[in-house]
Amino acid sequence: MISVGIIGSSGYTGKYLTRILSNHGQVKELVLYGDSSANKYLAQVHPDLLNFCDDVLIHEIDDSISKHDVIFTALPHGKSMKFINEFFNEKQLFIDLSGDFRFEDVRVYEKWYNTKHLAPELLDNAKYSLADISDIDKNKKIISNPGCYSTASLLSMLPLTKLRHTEIYGISTVAYSGVSGAGNKLKEDFLFPELDNNIYAYKVNNHQHEPEINNYLKKTGINTDYSFVPHLMPVFAGIYATTVVFTEEAVDDKELKNVYGSYYQNSPFVRVKENPPKMKNVIGTNYCDISVSARENKIVINAAIDNLIKGASGQAVQNMNKYFGFNESEGLIKI
Amino acid sequence: MISVGIIGSSGYTGKYLTRILSNHGQVKELVLYGDSSANKYLAQVHPDLLNFCDDVLIHEIDDSISKHDVIFTALPHGKSMKFINEFFNEKQLFIDLSGDFRFEDVRVYEKWYNTKHLAPELLDNAKYSLADISDIDKNKKIISNPGCYSTASLLSMLPLTKLRHTEIYGISTVAYSGVSGAGNKLKEDFLFPELDNNIYAYKVNNHQHEPEINNYLKKTGINTDYSFVPHLMPVFAGIYATTVVFTEEAVDDKELKNVYGSYYQNSPFVRVKENPPKMKNVIGTNYCDISVSARENKIVINAAIDNLIKGASGQAVQNMNKYFGFNESEGLIKI
Amino acid sequence: MISVGIIGSSGYTGKYLTRILSNHGQVKELVLYGDSSANKYLAQVHPDLLNFCDDVLIHEIDDSISKHDVIFTALPHGKSMKFINEFFNEKQLFIDLSGDFRFEDVRVYEKWYNTKHLAPELLDNAKYSLADISDIDKNKKIISNPGCYSTASLLSMLPLTKLRHTEIYGISTVAYSGVSGAGNKLKEDFLFPELDNNIYAYKVNNHQHEPEINNYLKKTGINTDYSFVPHLMPVFAGIYATTVVFTEEAVDDKELKNVYGSYYQNSPFVRVKENPPKMKNVIGTNYCDISVSARENKIVINAAIDNLIKGASGQAVQNMNKYFGFNESEGLIKI
Amino acid sequence: MISVGIIGSSGYTGKYLTRILSNHGQVKELVLYGDSSANKYLAQVHPDLLNFCDDVLIHEIDDSISKHDVIFTALPHGKSMKFINEFFNEKQLFIDLSGDFRFEDVRVYEKWYNTKHLAPELLDNAKYSLADISDIDKNKKIISNPGCYSTASLLSMLPLTKLRHTEIYGISTVAYSGVSGAGNKLKEDFLFPELDNNIYAYKVNNHQHEPEINNYLKKTGINTDYSFVPHLMPVFAGIYATTVVFTEEAVDDKELKNVYGSYYQNSPFVRVKENPPKMKNVIGTNYCDISVSARENKIVINAAIDNLIKGASGQAVQNMNKYFGFNESEGLIKI
Repeated sequence: MISVGIIGSSGYTGKYLTRILSNHGQVKELVLYGDSSANKYLAQVHPDLLNFCDDVLIHEIDDSISKHDVIFTALPHGKSMKFINEFFNEKQLFIDLSGDFRFEDVRVYEKWYNTKHLAPELLDNAKYSLADISDIDKNKKIISNPGCYSTASLLSMLPLTKLRHTEIYGISTVAYSGVSGAGNKLKEDFLFPELDNNIYAYKVNNHQHEPEINNYLKKTGINTDYSFVPHLMPVFAGIYATTVVFTEEAVDDKELKNVYGSYYQNSPFVRVKENPPKMKNVIGTNYCDISVSARENKIVINAAIDNLIKGASGQAVQNMNKYFGFNESEGLIKI
Repeated sequence: MISVGIIGSSGYTGKYLTRILSNHGQVKELVLYGDSSANKYLAQVHPDLLNFCDDVLIHEIDDSISKHDVIFTALPHGKSMKFINEFFNEKQLFIDLSGDFRFEDVRVYEKWYNTKHLAPELLDNAKYSLADISDIDKNKKIISNPGCYSTASLLSMLPLTKLRHTEIYGISTVAYSGVSGAGNKLKEDFLFPELDNNIYAYKVNNHQHEPEINNYLKKTGINTDYSFVPHLMPVFAGIYATTVVFTEEAVDDKELKNVYGSYYQNSPFVRVKENPPKMKNVIGTNYCDISVSARENKIVINAAIDNLIKGASGQAVQNMNKYFGFNESEGLIKI
Repeated sequence: MISVGIIGSSGYTGKYLTRILSNHGQVKELVLYGDSSANKYLAQVHPDLLNFCDDVLIHEIDDSISKHDVIFTALPHGKSMKFINEFFNEKQLFIDLSGDFRFEDVRVYEKWYNTKHLAPELLDNAKYSLADISDIDKNKKIISNPGCYSTASLLSMLPLTKLRHTEIYGISTVAYSGVSGAGNKLKEDFLFPELDNNIYAYKVNNHQHEPEINNYLKKTGINTDYSFVPHLMPVFAGIYATTVVFTEEAVDDKELKNVYGSYYQNSPFVRVKENPPKMKNVIGTNYCDISVSARENKIVINAAIDNLIKGASGQAVQNMNKYFGFNESEGLIKI
Repeated sequence: MISVGIIGSSGYTGKYLTRILSNHGQVKELVLYGDSSANKYLAQVHPDLLNFCDDVLIHEIDDSISKHDVIFTALPHGKSMKFINEFFNEKQLFIDLSGDFRFEDVRVYEKWYNTKHLAPELLDNAKYSLADISDIDKNKKIISNPGCYSTASLLSMLPLTKLRHTEIYGISTVAYSGVSGAGNKLKEDFLFPELDNNIYAYKVNNHQHEPEINNYLKKTGINTDYSFVPHLMPVFAGIYATTVVFTEEAVDDKELKNVYGSYYQNSPFVRVKENPPKMKNVIGTNYCDISVSARENKIVINAAIDNLIKGASGQAVQNMNKYFGFNESEGLIKI
């Protein structure tokens, strides 16, 4: 049994972290901390967070956080590294949901996030961890939780590394996200009349998850051109990622489906489906549903996740479960 | 001034054809014909078709259709060729909104539509006509109106033919359509509880608009691998098509934008935008809004249309306008 | 043919006024004026206002407005009376879409709008005009256009004045409005994540349209208790108003339906329906669809309108048409 | 610890019953039974029922159901009484979610449901049980679970029985329901294009929950005219009920709020709110959120519930908890 702190309770990911961890069989203590939301009750910040934890008080951030075995930082990038830089120590695990520790190369971070990194010397202590794939390194005291788009995209592509007999020569991911992906912001773009029945691409050729995905792909040996195009769709939650891959030789559809099935046969939260996944079946869950199809030298992979759970809070808890040796699914079956 | 008949009034495209043509300055007579909807008033079939034409009676199909200068067939594929085969003559123009006359090669049609072609000898009389691009051939008495996905996709790619200095080596279009794209069908898949907040790919590597697009691309000299992946999204109308193109050499973003701007400078219904188009701005219109962006050797093109207007009825009327030498925009500005 | 000015082009009602009047057969000149939006093109303010008038420039408000036969003020309450107070004269007609001139009794206005009236001496020149019902008084140079809720509610109840044989002893209207009813505001309440799938009552026992409705009812002789409860629903446009009436004696359903049918037989924009109206059939139109049903001593009336058209801009143009003796439907059939 | 059977797993209520009971601390055995869905796995019927119980097989209905302590019947009316009539015995508890056992007077049932009652002799064994209010009678072996509209409406009105000093002379409830209230039916009315952005009243003066509500009100001594008007709104789940009450004397707002607060102070699932409830805060929960407001002699009560949980499955489990003496909230906090 462990003690857990959550820094940043007022956003959507903080809310789901609270929902999951307040019902987690291995968590003996859960304390929320906030900045603007400090000294409020959780029910004031999230009136729809049901009753099972709405009388919880949000605390100010101070040294008492040192009592926790693990601290989740559900903060915007920039704020996250500032906090971890101040409180980092070798005795606690930090699981960071922002982009601040996702790049080993500080220059890539600074270019894409357009901000100076405040804790470059801590990057050695950080491990980017795709929960369904990555091994745990208990010596790294910062787990960098992947981005939501990156999670869906990488889970779509990684089994391709097992496709040995042909070369890949161009991969693109076109992804659609629900509005919650942008966080809880007061902005004209997010008004109901603006978004209702609307759809559009944004940050074309310019989204910070593209280098994150590319960086990881390169390490696995997938070394071809990669394009990523994000879109907004008029629903609250969810990411639907469609990846097209061109290959030198024709690929057999059945064989490819087997490769994907095998790759994820021991992954409790990745379900390889015969037909394209439906967004609906993953919303509110930690699952990533995936389908794959080949015709001639074209491969299409479709993946659906809940951006706030598998793409953020659920995956973060899954990373925690693996780090502490708990059952990987603990707290994540019924969310 | 011409006389116009519409065959098939009960579907969404029939409705928009009626709406547009009943307000068209060059149409002196408009008669609706139907099968299941014959002898009903239009207002019974489309209670939301406003009042300007709802007391119109839908007629049975008979020889009186010979009086019209042009006949629009807004019928499902299969039914359309059956009708045109029966009534075809050299004196009337037929504008067909189905897929029945979109392929010169009857074998391609029969493979993708999985049905025997009933009028192969008429294919010589048919011309596939992308209204914003194609020239009119007054000798062809069947205008085959493009598919909705094909319209958005082809308008996205055709300016690439002016991009001379580099080779293209892989193009993919990932497109999302509103529910009306599937027509007015009573099917579990289209129930509100099934579609609300849902999204999914369908007919992956298997959609009949893919060979239609490919066929046209080849003629323009774009001869590389092409992949098309359609999706359903929980809105009534609209298509959002995102096309990714890989090139051998890096492409200059500004230069590319100029190529697109020039290509469409005389097209009243294609608007080249600086930023990715928003679905909202084209719904209810005959416009196709397009943006293009290049980074290194990757090009991204985004296009938005109303699937029922630019992707069907509006384009059909635009084709009629061009055929008869009317102002191309007649009846299509305020829909 | 008349010359028309619109003050306030950036809101939803200004947009629809522009859309309607730019296509109106009796308008020879249309000029837009704005405050924050002055010197912008309409297309910058309303990118979805189609093309038929998007190259129109919005002018600053100055003395040149004196050239117009009629001036529409599509401004928030408070701003409207300030403007009219400054520019009022006996030669021009002002059609005001705000609440500023809806009460003869300045004390009622000041109580419910919680603001001092700036032009009480102009109230004598103002006439509250429910376009489908009210007579025109050419001596009144300010037409006060009714509120959106008031329009749907009053059109629901006025035929009851012809129901002679029984007393009414309690009326309530429960109404649901789309989000656009609140105008174009940047407020947390109107963010997509807040409104999507949400519904709630607001201003219970406290909405300014309640006294507006009550005031008019009293004049018609309907003098019983009246309750009005507004709600927000997660759609862009539309008002659905359900009115329940208790009577001393039982009312015959068929007779009541006849009363309603007769009452509106000459009203081109009120359609009395056999079944409860569907919101969909009035959106984008100037129609008010109404149904009525009686069982024992209970009457239920359902009414649906587009809040931005029949509940604002469309009705305002209808009032203009009647004032100048144009065809009442001019410009209002195809919107 | 008890053994539980659910008859009817393919509908929405069956799904939620399964979801709740498969995680219930006092349920040692849960078996699903079905008719059309027999011999399928739950995951085939409800692909979005997450993973925690989707490998469960649905059994055919046979005598083995006699092993359960309690049997939930989540069947359409008509089918439910047929089943219970066949399997009824004094040793098992039946909790029926249909309308079949909601009226003591078989004539009222037969009039409003327009069908002959198949088990009138069992009505003596049935108790209509509003879980938050009603006492348990352990001798009655059929618990009749209230209708969804009835639950929201009755919880809104019952505290009025404590309002002693004035007479009520007219009550009306105008209620809006999400589409799931109509069950899982393949019908044109429930197609996405038909419902999207639509709203309408239905069964005006003719809904079977009106006599159900009226029947209960009369027993509590509320004996005035009552009108109920149901509407459909374009969301999946939820009921929003607005009740207007006229009184002889003015009612003090603060006093009334106190009456409501006191009435529900020991009800864990009814939350009396200062402001009108928001639908969002109750979706996915067993809560009924209520607000009340008085001005002069008019009272407005707003109530929001999840129609599938508090209005069906959640309340049924709450009734079970009370019957067996379990903690009333068991299984119902995190759904």
